[in-house]
Amino acid sequence: MKQIPRKEWKKFVEWYPKILRKAGIYDDRYPAKGMGVWLPYGFKLREKVYGYLKKLHTEAGYEQVQFPTLIPEDIFRKEAEHVASFEKEVFWVTRGGLTELDKKFVLRPTSETPMYYMFSLWLNSYKDLPFRIFQIVNVFRYETKATHPLFREREISIFFESHSAFLTQEEAEEEVRRAVEIYKKFFDYLGIPYIITRRPDWDKFPGADYTIAFDTLMPNGRTLQIGTVHNLGQNFSKPFDIKVITEKGENKHVWQVCFGVSGRVITALVAVHGDDHGPVFPFHVAPIQVVIIPIPMKDGGISEKVLEKSRKVFELLKKAGISVVLDDKEDETPGSKYYKWELRGVPLRIEIGPREVKEGKITITRRDNLERITVSDSELIEKIKEIGEKMFEDMKQRAMKFFKENIVEVSSIDKANKMVEEGKIAILPWCGDEKESETLEEIISGRIIGILLNKNNLKPEKPREGLKCAICGKNAKKYLVIAKSY
Amino acid sequence: MKQIPRKEWKKFVEWYPKILRKAGIYDDRYPAKGMGVWLPYGFKLREKVYGYLKKLHTEAGYEQVQFPTLIPEDIFRKEAEHVASFEKEVFWVTRGGLTELDKKFVLRPTSETPMYYMFSLWLNSYKDLPFRIFQIVNVFRYETKATHPLFREREISIFFESHSAFLTQEEAEEEVRRAVEIYKKFFDYLGIPYIITRRPDWDKFPGADYTIAFDTLMPNGRTLQIGTVHNLGQNFSKPFDIKVITEKGENKHVWQVCFGVSGRVITALVAVHGDDHGPVFPFHVAPIQVVIIPIPMKDGGISEKVLEKSRKVFELLKKAGISVVLDDKEDETPGSKYYKWELRGVPLRIEIGPREVKEGKITITRRDNLERITVSDSELIEKIKEIGEKMFEDMKQRAMKFFKENIVEVSSIDKANKMVEEGKIAILPWCGDEKESETLEEIISGRIIGILLNKNNLKPEKPREGLKCAICGKNAKKYLVIAKSY
Repeated sequence: MKQIPRKEWKKFVEWYPKILRKAGIYDDRYPAKGMGVWLPYGFKLREKVYGYLKKLHTEAGYEQVQFPTLIPEDIFRKEAEHVASFEKEVFWVTRGGLTELDKKFVLRPTSETPMYYMFSLWLNSYKDLPFRIFQIVNVFRYETKATHPLFREREISIFFESHSAFLTQEEAEEEVRRAVEIYKKFFDYLGIPYIITRRPDWDKFPGADYTIAFDTLMPNGRTLQIGTVHNLGQNFSKPFDIKVITEKGENKHVWQVCFGVSGRVITALVAVHGDDHGPVFPFHVAPIQVVIIPIPMKDGGISEKVLEKSRKVFELLKKAGISVVLDDKEDETPGSKYYKWELRGVPLRIEIGPREVKEGKITITRRDNLERITVSDSELIEKIKEIGEKMFEDMKQRAMKFFKENIVEVSSIDKANKMVEEGKIAILPWCGDEKESETLEEIISGRIIGILLNKNNLKPEKPREGLKCAICGKNAKKYLVIAKSY
Repeated sequence: MKQIPRKEWKKFVEWYPKILRKAGIYDDRYPAKGMGVWLPYGFKLREKVYGYLKKLHTEAGYEQVQFPTLIPEDIFRKEAEHVASFEKEVFWVTRGGLTELDKKFVLRPTSETPMYYMFSLWLNSYKDLPFRIFQIVNVFRYETKATHPLFREREISIFFESHSAFLTQEEAEEEVRRAVEIYKKFFDYLGIPYIITRRPDWDKFPGADYTIAFDTLMPNGRTLQIGTVHNLGQNFSKPFDIKVITEKGENKHVWQVCFGVSGRVITALVAVHGDDHGPVFPFHVAPIQVVIIPIPMKDGGISEKVLEKSRKVFELLKKAGISVVLDDKEDETPGSKYYKWELRGVPLRIEIGPREVKEGKITITRRDNLERITVSDSELIEKIKEIGEKMFEDMKQRAMKFFKENIVEVSSIDKANKMVEEGKIAILPWCGDEKESETLEEIISGRIIGILLNKNNLKPEKPREGLKCAICGKNAKKYLVIAKSY
């Protein structure tokens, strides 16, 4: 069994873009900083991964739409806090053809402002509520820091954003919980571990009442924000004047919630399950689930019988709805083929050689631990699915183990600093005094991710009886999560 | 049977955006010229329509990718003819945050330049060929003329562009024919009639050797270009230096073909089949295929038995994979419901009232001609599909009839002008002298759409024996197509 030397992965940011490219997922050699190309294999992965999120959205009553990329300047400037925060990081379209534009455009960094302008036209009566839409688009941020494919980009090549409106504050609160449930199911489906926190006020989404965030951990000890849910209150509905007439004939501004994930989900999927050889995809989202490699005879050629059986197995798997490739090229060694398909993260490899033909058996190799399992021809389909599921369970457990091992509760700021330097997530008991956390942000080497929330009720996780605040020594009421983050 | 008063549709450009909006397809009230929003119902339509085109592409060996929206200026400027033509109509991104960009970006008007830059990295050996990709994205043109939703936009909200590379000129020629076959199947699938022409040289795609185009006819007598195929020769592979090593070890520039369609396909679908009441969608691409409307008793309420049968029929259709809605709202009259669903172009309407319950029957109404057909409960599914298919056949025939009636062969320029003024497509016998056609463009009231091609072999359609060139009187060898166009 091959160990994954995650702790040696200080060079994660070098490993990662190369792997994305070599695996055929995403090419960052596009000639502009922070922009890349989804390759055919990556595009199929993307369709499968976000396809599941689409399904969850449809089940939750969300419908897909598509808005323009360009936001007119006056619309962009309507919500003060929002524009103040984004102004420094948006791209501006100032010229059309050979003329300067009178009315400039912003390339959307996110779509609250253009969407909510249209909400004000669409929503008129309480009967139009609840209202729920989503779109899958690209968004833009003028990043001045180092960029990384799919997780810090100037053109964020996939952004799955969901927007909603309700008659009451209570319904909006309830939608926050529903949104969190959607993301929990989504990340669980991918086997990506996470903590849920409420972001500190100075780090919430600009224009939101509060932000709840999902973070996972990269192999090099940095956390990665992979999803956020924002309760917008009436902060946008007032400047955009999104009003409905209630059943009683009153005019009321709506309450809003929005939430989003980006290409970072793919980053997490690749980084959390990958190893030195490349990504390892869960069976149920792998663009190619099984590769069949016919094994040549000792003199080098592939026998007709081996080829025949390989083709039969290929057809059988295809018929069973499994995404399968038969790699029967004559001019490449099996070793080279193994390497190639491991690099692409294909979960299961089937080898068929003279022995497999003779014995009526098939040898299956798992991508994650290279375990070889021999099954008889007749039970193939059933076993493939079983092994695929088992492999995913093991991947999930390994990911969870790594994640848990790297979350440590500490009792002092010094220890928190030490843990964060070692690439861990520190959990610090805290009395709950907001002012303390603000000064704390200045003295710790990491940063405050947020207040740790219970995954089930989304209330702050309660410290054990008797624990004291690591900052002031009073009784602890909450936990602060501290880590180095992307 | 309701007649479609197409010839009264001078006001097509007023009718059309309203219908798009009211039907829930596309909202052009976005606060910027030439930009609009795909609404949920429209998005579903879009998925079905372009989903079929995706299927055709996959079958033809094309794989989906996604490139950035932004093209760095130096990449954009590599092919001289291309940049000269597009420079006047691209949007420029000149500012990031608060700073002027050193390296400006163009919002892609089409993706040859960024794609072919990447082709030069990806294609190295003859083994990498043929190479075929496509993407479904938005593109941008700084239109100064009047804009129309989905067919002349500043942000073209859907552009399905396909790009390929080959070792030889012959293979590229063959790909032009394959691309034309894809589009023929696509438009036939939608029942959209078309002519195929080779565009005059001054009207071909900038950078192409030649362009083959599909045009259909709007109800107001203007043609609409709905798809184009470009043989690019080596015009891009040379400046972008896309070279491969042949089997013999030589270095060779590749030969390229690209082709594309836009949101105009939806324009054509709505305009070609629609009537005064709104769009009429073919059964197989309709986002909602059947609507069930329970008919109230004379005193106003809907009886429990009627509701029960309506629900049963709803479940039955759903189970059969038919997209169906049960409109059982109590506070709306059947008449108002009819109107609402007709406006959305739902092909079939089922009415279930006390009579239908008593007699074990179901009444189906076709959207296109309002014909009412009564079927017995037991044959429902079979009949629904049969009626849906029949309706599409009729729609196709009506569309084809209108199209053919409006294509007229003429023998003189005067007659061509007259026909074009009447909103027809004029077909003019021509000797084939290119210089003549260039002067012709100045004296005719329409535009030279191109040289009429035979749909099967893509060679110029041969004029009948003895026909003379309408310009010089010599023997005619080809036909010129002349019309007012969008």
